[in-house]
Amino acid sequence: MPLPCRPPETSTSRDGKKRWAPTSRWSLPMSAEALAIESDFFAPRAAIDDLLSEFLTEKAQNASVPGQAALALLLRDFVAGGKRVRPLLCVTGWLAAGGRGDPAQAVRLAASIELAHACALIHDDIMDASDSRRGRPTVHRVLADHHHVPSTAQRYGLSGAILLGDLALVWSDELLHTTPMPDAHRVAVMRCVDLARSELIGGQHLDLLTTGDLHVSIETTMSVVRYKTAKYTIERPLQVGAALAGAGRQVMDACSAYGVPLGEAFQLRDDVLGVFGDPDRMGKSRLDDLREGKCTSLIVHALRASGPAQAGRLRALIGDPHLGEQEAAEVRDILTSTGARAAVERMIEERYRQALDALASAPFPHGASRILENVVETVVHRTA
Amino acid sequence: MPLPCRPPETSTSRDGKKRWAPTSRWSLPMSAEALAIESDFFAPRAAIDDLLSEFLTEKAQNASVPGQAALALLLRDFVAGGKRVRPLLCVTGWLAAGGRGDPAQAVRLAASIELAHACALIHDDIMDASDSRRGRPTVHRVLADHHHVPSTAQRYGLSGAILLGDLALVWSDELLHTTPMPDAHRVAVMRCVDLARSELIGGQHLDLLTTGDLHVSIETTMSVVRYKTAKYTIERPLQVGAALAGAGRQVMDACSAYGVPLGEAFQLRDDVLGVFGDPDRMGKSRLDDLREGKCTSLIVHALRASGPAQAGRLRALIGDPHLGEQEAAEVRDILTSTGARAAVERMIEERYRQALDALASAPFPHGASRILENVVETVVHRTA
Repeated sequence: MPLPCRPPETSTSRDGKKRWAPTSRWSLPMSAEALAIESDFFAPRAAIDDLLSEFLTEKAQNASVPGQAALALLLRDFVAGGKRVRPLLCVTGWLAAGGRGDPAQAVRLAASIELAHACALIHDDIMDASDSRRGRPTVHRVLADHHHVPSTAQRYGLSGAILLGDLALVWSDELLHTTPMPDAHRVAVMRCVDLARSELIGGQHLDLLTTGDLHVSIETTMSVVRYKTAKYTIERPLQVGAALAGAGRQVMDACSAYGVPLGEAFQLRDDVLGVFGDPDRMGKSRLDDLREGKCTSLIVHALRASGPAQAGRLRALIGDPHLGEQEAAEVRDILTSTGARAAVERMIEERYRQALDALASAPFPHGASRILENVVETVVHRTA
Repeated sequence: MPLPCRPPETSTSRDGKKRWAPTSRWSLPMSAEALAIESDFFAPRAAIDDLLSEFLTEKAQNASVPGQAALALLLRDFVAGGKRVRPLLCVTGWLAAGGRGDPAQAVRLAASIELAHACALIHDDIMDASDSRRGRPTVHRVLADHHHVPSTAQRYGLSGAILLGDLALVWSDELLHTTPMPDAHRVAVMRCVDLARSELIGGQHLDLLTTGDLHVSIETTMSVVRYKTAKYTIERPLQVGAALAGAGRQVMDACSAYGVPLGEAFQLRDDVLGVFGDPDRMGKSRLDDLREGKCTSLIVHALRASGPAQAGRLRALIGDPHLGEQEAAEVRDILTSTGARAAVERMIEERYRQALDALASAPFPHGASRILENVVETVVHRTA
């Protein structure tokens, strides 16, 4: 007797789009959704979004400690705005290592990655004393603005945001620990997750140590890029998903060979856009990076290539919290005339080639390779 | 042929005391050390200390990101000062659920609990803007004091301490994820660990919400006590260890029946000592709790029992950052004359009885019960 062929469980969201249920009991391989994720990078997005929303709504509904429901809902709203780059790469990593059929476990792991990332962002906003993210007030601002005792509002905002970041990490762990996976794969999954997190922190710390210091070497700058972005955003999410599917050494190495240069290109493109990008498309000012005094690859190159007068101007302008449009234009001129911009574009191009070369020889299924090829194009040639 | 009977692997520490090696390959049950931990609460302490020290030293030695070695060593120094209440209770929980023989896995899990606790303390010190802990500068102070750029030292101290707290939690996870345990027990261990952490955060957040508010109910105050201390410090560490040994429902429930009232008594004793204790024995001022405006059980009771004049004085004094010895003496007089101190002592006594009663009917082995009996006495009748 043939197995009864039920359609996959779907839910219809507010936007009217059908989505696969994150805890689908559908287990026959090659459902329409499974086929979709084999060719479309963004296909698992709705399932990741739904799982995060359901998980955090449930946390709010079942909160045992007074006050915790509000934290869960605040986190749900915060998380709703993300681009999901890391979780989508996690699902792609699972495909790249031969993952087939019901992607529910990869989606759960992907959602776990996104919650850990929420911790990083919430804490990062405290460290940068940022007032807004994604066009909305940051968590510490929201908490301070809504506190009932005005005299302690600032302190409550800071402390509450530290705690909410911690809670996001703890709930990320809960998703991780409740993702069913073969015991033989669990060790590698956990190892990649733990590594990704500690490398990010190492990169953030090195960034802190060097911010405001205009004498850092290009090697140090590239270390920040490697640990804070390349490994954390591309290499490790791919490997976490790949490990879930039981990837061997070859697949894991291919994830690195592809992910590290691509992640570096991603950050270098960010550095260029932060100063030369279109503010309207970027949704952020071109003054922020310069005012903050970030010693990006662009700045290091320019300082190395410029004469005493230009170097003096750069040192005077970079990190000036009152830097205006006119000074920013002056910095852009120096970055262009010293050849710094062109040098960074060459670095991006070189890494773009490396990532594509790695992909060409990677032992990934065709569908996963196609997706990762598109990711390279998007990352390198984006304008926002 | 009988098994070769080798002595357990020990290492001799600087103080000359023999300690069992935390990753001992000794697996015959009933070594001298195993016998010791069956009767002495503090026996596993050296092994926990050694494991933490070795783990963090190794992190410093193998740090791949520049700057991370210094963070690992700072964390090692910070962790070295702890009393190890929670990790020791974890090992005791393992014994209570029938754990026997080599305690290496329970010790590793215990060390993981201590690193997560380090995260809580480091972040707590930021939230309280504390300058010292355990008689030494807090992490954010150490980082700020040693930063090479004076103008950004404060910001680096705050940000670095947020990151080091996060790193402690990530490394706690690494110890957790690399503790070998039967698959059948893992789900329960992870569940207890995740719960302990989210409950602590819930309790800390509720504490934040109510600090400075002298109108909170005794129920709210006791919620803070329950989640921030009772569950986090006593119940959950016991259950984590018990789950490792494969505890069933009865043992887990007995850990709760014992741990929650004892943990509440522990915090209530702290509240009393914070105001009435001997500052020399306590190692901290009796002014801190009062200046901070913490609405402890003592204060709630006194406000409820006092007339308008006394209540007015309490409201004026509690939370005053400049409160001096004379005003503290006045508060103590009110706490005594309103019967608040006696009421809290009765609450402690009641919970002391509940914990002992729970222990009398708990299905624990005799040795574990004896240890937990001594813990009750120490917690309730301590003077510092």
